[in-house]
Amino acid sequence: MNIKPLGDRVLVEREAAEEKTAGGILLPENAKEKPQQGKVLAVGDGKVLADGSRKELQVKVGDTVFFTTWAGDEYKSNGQSVLLMREEDILAIVE
Amino acid sequence: MNIKPLGDRVLVEREAAEEKTAGGILLPENAKEKPQQGKVLAVGDGKVLADGSRKELQVKVGDTVFFTTWAGDEYKSNGQSVLLMREEDILAIVE
Amino acid sequence: MNIKPLGDRVLVEREAAEEKTAGGILLPENAKEKPQQGKVLAVGDGKVLADGSRKELQVKVGDTVFFTTWAGDEYKSNGQSVLLMREEDILAIVE
Amino acid sequence: MNIKPLGDRVLVEREAAEEKTAGGILLPENAKEKPQQGKVLAVGDGKVLADGSRKELQVKVGDTVFFTTWAGDEYKSNGQSVLLMREEDILAIVE
Amino acid sequence: MNIKPLGDRVLVEREAAEEKTAGGILLPENAKEKPQQGKVLAVGDGKVLADGSRKELQVKVGDTVFFTTWAGDEYKSNGQSVLLMREEDILAIVE
Amino acid sequence: MNIKPLGDRVLVEREAAEEKTAGGILLPENAKEKPQQGKVLAVGDGKVLADGSRKELQVKVGDTVFFTTWAGDEYKSNGQSVLLMREEDILAIVE
Amino acid sequence: MNIKPLGDRVLVEREAAEEKTAGGILLPENAKEKPQQGKVLAVGDGKVLADGSRKELQVKVGDTVFFTTWAGDEYKSNGQSVLLMREEDILAIVE
Repeated sequence: MNIKPLGDRVLVEREAAEEKTAGGILLPENAKEKPQQGKVLAVGDGKVLADGSRKELQVKVGDTVFFTTWAGDEYKSNGQSVLLMREEDILAIVE
Repeated sequence: MNIKPLGDRVLVEREAAEEKTAGGILLPENAKEKPQQGKVLAVGDGKVLADGSRKELQVKVGDTVFFTTWAGDEYKSNGQSVLLMREEDILAIVE
Repeated sequence: MNIKPLGDRVLVEREAAEEKTAGGILLPENAKEKPQQGKVLAVGDGKVLADGSRKELQVKVGDTVFFTTWAGDEYKSNGQSVLLMREEDILAIVE
Repeated sequence: MNIKPLGDRVLVEREAAEEKTAGGILLPENAKEKPQQGKVLAVGDGKVLADGSRKELQVKVGDTVFFTTWAGDEYKSNGQSVLLMREEDILAIVE
Repeated sequence: MNIKPLGDRVLVEREAAEEKTAGGILLPENAKEKPQQGKVLAVGDGKVLADGSRKELQVKVGDTVFFTTWAGDEYKSNGQSVLLMREEDILAIVE
Repeated sequence: MNIKPLGDRVLVEREAAEEKTAGGILLPENAKEKPQQGKVLAVGDGKVLADGSRKELQVKVGDTVFFTTWAGDEYKSNGQSVLLMREEDILAIVE
Repeated sequence: MNIKPLGDRVLVEREAAEEKTAGGILLPENAKEKPQQGKVLAVGDGKVLADGSRKELQVKVGDTVFFTTWAGDEYKSNGQSVLLMREEDILAIVE
């Protein structure tokens, strides 16, 4: 099953809590919350501008992104937990 | 009776809860809610832009779509339960 | 007496509750509410766009339309009950 | 004393409650409220658009108009009760 | 001391309550409130439009204006009570 | 230390309460509040317009300005009490 | 690990409370709060304008900036405490 986000939405797989990336992960101050970091699985075609054209999203498939605590809603797809969020709720790309 | 949605609205038939698609379905975390997935039956002509032209909708008749829990209102038409929602409340196309 | 709606407003006569159209009517889930269906009696000239021109409305006189529960306000005119609503609150045209 | 409304405002004299026009008047459902109908005494130059020009109002002096219950504020001028309302709160022209 | 209002603001001296103009004054329904009428002492350069230009105000110095009950804030300047309000809160010019 | 306000912000030094300017100062009705008058120390480059250009601010360094009671936040810099406010909260220039 | 803020966001390292810069620091009135001053570590590509282009941010990497008390959210990255905030919440550049 392939999920194609609409407009300015982004499909993200949240990083597992214990997984430590080489450079250490970006932890919210009270680390007991779910990690706010994950990998981009799919992106929408972008937001519609005033003239009707679409503005491509900044994040790409494969990027590791850092997002707000309220970003998107969690879904189960083929047993995998995924998030569908708006790019506006993504704070930064973690390189 | 034929229902022609207006503007950026979309007519969707919600999938029955027990129906499993081949690739498994996109389930909200607390699966006891009604499935947020269904088939597009009809689409509006799109949203009016600042210059008065209309921006065609991204979803097409026949698409299987995944939508938010608050998407649209439920109606009975010829005994069939349908939803009239805004495209803005559709999260993704499920291929 | 002739009522000419202003801007993006539409004059609608609500269908009587017991009247069944050939194809069955579009019933809200809890059918005890007033029917949300009716006939368009008159339409405004449309909404003013940013450049001052007007965008013609999608619905026409004579259309049967389906509208939200909160659409417009009810008035008595020559003993007839009519609704003055915004086109934005009309969900679909029922053909 | 002459009152020149500003921008998109309209000066209206509310019809007296007992006055019945030939075609019957447009009565809100609970008729005990003040009539929402009256005659246009003066109109503003219109609303300023994004480019700074003004969009002329749809209603003209002498029109009989039907307006919402919350339209404008009531004032006494030369003993006459008048309303200063926005055109946006006028629902229709009654011909 | 000279007060130059900014943008779309207008400096107004409120009419004294007992002063009756020749044509009678525009009184709110419950006349015990402060009169909502006064003389324009100074005007701002106007509101900034989307393209950065300024749209001149409709009211001029010397105009007698009628304004809403909530228009502006009252200040003492050289012992004189003045109001600094937005043109948007001025309802009409009283000629 | 030099403070360069961003965008449409203005750095203002509030006038000391007892200091009487030659022409008398602009006092709010209940004079016990802090004076709402002060001198402009620095200005931002202006607000970004829809096309990305910046609209220069109306107030200049050295102007005496009159501002709302809620204008900006108070800071200590080199022992001096300064306010960082938006130009939108400045009511007038006092000449 | 490198953090690339998105859009109009800015990565800032907050100044330690006791650190006194040569010219004294910009202290909020009730100094017991965390200092609202820090160094810019990275900037986003800017905000998307109506035509889809991006407006570059005013602050640069290396600037010392003064920001509101509610600016951004605090994160731990490689043991370092950093803030991801919007440029809109930055009041001034401290030179």
